This record gives sequence, C-alpha cells and structure tokens, in this order.
Amino acid sequence: MNASRYIADDLADKIRAGNRRALARAITLIESTHTQHKAQAEELIQTLLPDTGNSIRLGVSGVPGVGKSTFIEALGQTIIAQGHRLAVLSIDPSSSISGGSILGDKTRMEQLARNPAAYIRPSPSGNTFGGVARRSREAMLLCEAAGFDVLIIETVGVGQTETAVAEMTDMFLLLLLPAGGDELQGIKRGIMELADLILINKSDGDWQAAARRAAADYRNALRLLQARSVHWQPRVELCSALTGAGIDEVWQQVIEYRQCMTGSGAFEQRRQQQASHWLWQELKDSLLDVFTHDPAVQAQLPVLQTRVKQGQLAPAVAARQMLDAFLQHKK
Amino acid sequence: MNASRYIADDLADKIRAGNRRALARAITLIESTHTQHKAQAEELIQTLLPDTGNSIRLGVSGVPGVGKSTFIEALGQTIIAQGHRLAVLSIDPSSSISGGSILGDKTRMEQLARNPAAYIRPSPSGNTFGGVARRSREAMLLCEAAGFDVLIIETVGVGQTETAVAEMTDMFLLLLLPAGGDELQGIKRGIMELADLILINKSDGDWQAAARRAAADYRNALRLLQARSVHWQPRVELCSALTGAGIDEVWQQVIEYRQCMTGSGAFEQRRQQQASHWLWQELKDSLLDVFTHDPAVQAQLPVLQTRVKQGQLAPAVAARQMLDAFLQHKK
Repeated sequence: MNASRYIADDLADKIRAGNRRALARAITLIESTHTQHKAQAEELIQTLLPDTGNSIRLGVSGVPGVGKSTFIEALGQTIIAQGHRLAVLSIDPSSSISGGSILGDKTRMEQLARNPAAYIRPSPSGNTFGGVARRSREAMLLCEAAGFDVLIIETVGVGQTETAVAEMTDMFLLLLLPAGGDELQGIKRGIMELADLILINKSDGDWQAAARRAAADYRNALRLLQARSVHWQPRVELCSALTGAGIDEVWQQVIEYRQCMTGSGAFEQRRQQQASHWLWQELKDSLLDVFTHDPAVQAQLPVLQTRVKQGQLAPAVAARQMLDAFLQHKK
Repeated sequence: MNASRYIADDLADKIRAGNRRALARAITLIESTHTQHKAQAEELIQTLLPDTGNSIRLGVSGVPGVGKSTFIEALGQTIIAQGHRLAVLSIDPSSSISGGSILGDKTRMEQLARNPAAYIRPSPSGNTFGGVARRSREAMLLCEAAGFDVLIIETVGVGQTETAVAEMTDMFLLLLLPAGGDELQGIKRGIMELADLILINKSDGDWQAAARRAAADYRNALRLLQARSVHWQPRVELCSALTGAGIDEVWQQVIEYRQCMTGSGAFEQRRQQQASHWLWQELKDSLLDVFTHDPAVQAQLPVLQTRVKQGQLAPAVAARQMLDAFLQHKK
C-alpha cells in the first residue's frame, strides 16, 4: 500500500468518527502546495466523497463593520440549539496577499469557538484567489464528512469572493447596514443579485426607523432584478445580531428556503450544476497555471502584454504566438 | 512576398480608402474558420492596427420588442446629420446555434442601410459564443480603419452577450420598456449594472406616464448599485424612437459621457484594460479550444464529467486526470 493511500485512509476514518484534530490536519493538508501533500489531499477527498453533501451550505457576506461575526455567533447559537452541528469557514481575499488572515481570529466568535458542536476554521492563505476558493470547497467537503450538517462560508464584501461563495453554497445571505438607498454601502456591482436573503442588521434602538426604510428601498430594488431561481423570490428582513431580534426568524427562512428548493428539485439541480462548474473551473485554473508557469510563455508574456496594451499588437496575434510557444515547448 | 502578406496589404489599402466591398470581404475573412484565412485575417488586423481606435464604441442592448432597430435607425440619423460615419454591428447568440442570423436583416434599418455614411453588418455566425465575440471585436477594428468614427454594437438582451459587449465598448446603453418596477422585463441579473445610460424607449402617447414612473423606479434602483466608473453616474432618460423624442438628447449624453471620461483619463484607461482583458480572453479561449479538441481529453471528458455530477468523483481529481492526459499527449 502506498503512503498517500495509507494516510488518506487513516485520516478519513478519524474524520468520519468526528475527530477534530484529524479534521484540522486534513484541512491543513488540502491547503498545502507541496506536491506530495496534494496527492494525499486528492486521495483523501476522493475517499471521503461518499460521506459528503448532507448539509445546508450557507454563504454569508457583507462589508466590514456590518457585524458578520456577531451575526454568525448569534445565528450559530440558534442553529446549535436545534441540535445541529455547525462549521464556519472564512474566505478572505486579503489573506491571499498578506499571507495572514484578518478574519481567521477565533476569538471573534468566542461562544461558538468554545462550543463542541461548532467548528471554526480561519481563512486559508494562498497566492491566488482561485486557490483559496478551491481549498474552501474542499474544506466544506471535509467538514461534511466529519458530521457537520450546517456550513457557513463567510466572506468580506469585496467583489469576486461573493460570486465564488454564491457558486459553492446552497443559499447566499447578504448583510447590510440600516442605511438609506442613497448610501452605496460599498457593495460591489452584481452582489445584491446573488442574495437569496438580504438582512438589514443592526436594526435596534435608534436605527429601527432607518432599517425599515432601507428594507423598503431594497425590496423595491429587488423587484427590478431577476431572481436566481424561479422557485424562490429573494426576501429582505430586519435583524439585530446584538439584541438577537430576528435571528431565530433567519433560521426559519433558511429552513423554508431549503424545503422550497428541495421540494422542487432545484436544490439537487443547483448542486449538480455547481459540481460541473467546479470541474471546469479546476480545469481552466490548472491549464492556465501550467501555461503561465511555462518558461517559453514567461519569456514572452510581459513584452507581448505591453505591446497589446499600447495598441501595437493585436490580441489575437499575441495569443497565438504564446500558444504556439507553449505547445511547441510541450512537444 | 507570401500570399497572406499580399492579400493583407491589398485589403488594408482598400479599407483605408473607405472601399466598402473590401471592408465586407475583410469581415468575411475574419469570420472564416479556415486555417489559411485565419492567417490572412491576423496579418490584416495587425497591418491595420495603427489605423484603429479613433471612434466611440457604443453598446446597445435590450430585450426583443423594446425597439432596438427603430432606436438605432433614429439615433443613426442624428449621428450622421452631425457629420459622423456610423457602423452598426450585431451580436446575436441565437445565430451561433441556428447558423443564421435573426438580427442580420438589413431591411430592419432601411434608411441607414441606404445611407452612404452608414455601414450595417449582420451578426457573424459561429459555433461558439467566444468566437462570435472575438470576430465582433475584430470587425470593430476593421470599421475604424475604414473611417467609421461611431460604432454601435447591438445585442439582444439574453445574458452573456451584454457582458461581452460592455467589455468591448466605451459606453453601454440599455433600452427598457415603459413598464413599472413590478415587471421584470426579462432583464438578466447583473445587466442593469453594466449600463452607463438607461433609456426608457416607447415613451410616447399613452405610455408617457408609465415611462416616467419606470424611470423613477430605475433611478432609485441605480442609486443602490455601484457605478462602473467614479467619473460617471449612470443616468435614466426617456425617449421614443418612433416619434424621435429624446433621441438628439441621447447623442448629447454620449458626447457628454465621452468628454467626461476622456478628460479624466478614464476613457483611455478603460481601452487599455479592455485590450489586456481581450488578450487573456483570447489566451484562455485558445487554450481551452486546444484542450477540448485533444483526442486524449475527448476520450475521457464525458465519463469524468458525469461521475463528477453524480458525486462519484472529486472535481480536482477529474481535472488532474484530464490535464495529465493532455500534457502527456502533447509531449
């Protein structure tokens, strides 16, 4: 028996048994860029695949300051009180650049971090966003195999991550501040349209009137946008993670959404589409990775790119030259 | 002198001189999938590159029935009356499938079709959307080299084409019906956020009150979305292509937009980003094209894809298997 196989089988057994240290080790393994680790990680994921999928995957996003941690802490208590086991994973694009994670601090969600029914995993670092997204998808599978039946994928509201998170989850929750329609709240274009549920957080105290006005504005705006699914019209609700108002109702909405989507077959259909999308994403990423690391390509790329930008070289010509160099070199 | 070079030089001279037959032949050449034609087309585009770029490129989109042809016919008269030369190109994804073009009928814009200052080119057909988009980009360059200084890229409002058109033009105009906010108008998610100018067309007769309400609704909705550029806040205006009301004002908006973007340097910056984006798009498309046509990949793809969809195989494993087969085969 080869080493990768042995390690994968051993880790898989421990993960299925709910061993948290094994789960942590496995997630570290899939985050590794070491060739040998990659082979082990692949073996492990493939081994555990039959044990995955039995969860609801929730994406939670919102700009810094909207209160994501407090919200997840509050919603997490509700979820666990219903007998579920919750895993929280973060995707933080800034950690791709800094190598560290601003979201990964477990102390942000103190109560959840101490609860044996919850598992909190900081954002993986990595040098490409695609790499971080891929590892998050695989970390989700590992958590499912370890028996967590509710997953929250948290991300800061800075653009490309939301699309990736919406594409890897069953339901996408967008947290907004109780600010009027005049304020842009820093939400990137296209993000609002990904949301299955919009929550105006901090709807407490003096903010309540503003929150109701904001909710009305967003409801009007949503009516102008096409819903993601014919089976679910996105909703706008109020909540306060601080006082706990509306948090139980959020979980009710999740359950209602799931019933609605499962009953219509849309839930399973979306999962299948996501698997197919993920495959193509992996293919494109790997292909581009091999391509951009090819010495022949690297020798030409900077010069050709500059000439294209300056209008001296047609993009199609530059692309063909690089592709020829790549394929020649491969032969 | 080789044949490709000779043909390219000859065609280029005629195109620069404004020869319409040469322009039509050249566009047919770039639409060809024949290997030899491709080489000629590449040579031609590269030869004409210094003569391109001196135009304003307008994207015009809207669902079938919104009155795009009548609108372009009306706006075209205004543009030509100002002494400009106008080329209208269509992108019609349905023609990629049917092999014919529903948009390409010149009789749709009778007056423009007869005007020597206008050039109307039907949608190219092709078996991939990426191919159609690429040819449209190159057709734009040819029209510019032929002295057309206003380009309209027209597309039906069915999703992926709008993004492609917004990415290849300087300004994106979205036509909407005078329908209230309750009606979705079939606009795909994310399209409204691409628009630099939203026009409520058919604002005439009994529709005027409804058009004003729709405009107010869309203005409110736009305030919730982040603008594409810090230098331009998208606007919502009324017009009637039928009566001509508001059409001159549309052209004024285009001029204002151009001044605004040129003055701030954003115009040139966007063009450079588009050139770079185009290069990468070409690279990815060509790479994927070579990959998917590889016999080793074709032998494995259908089986692996099905297994991934059914949850029997991890996407990363499937992707690696196919990539290995591809690279092995290339060596």
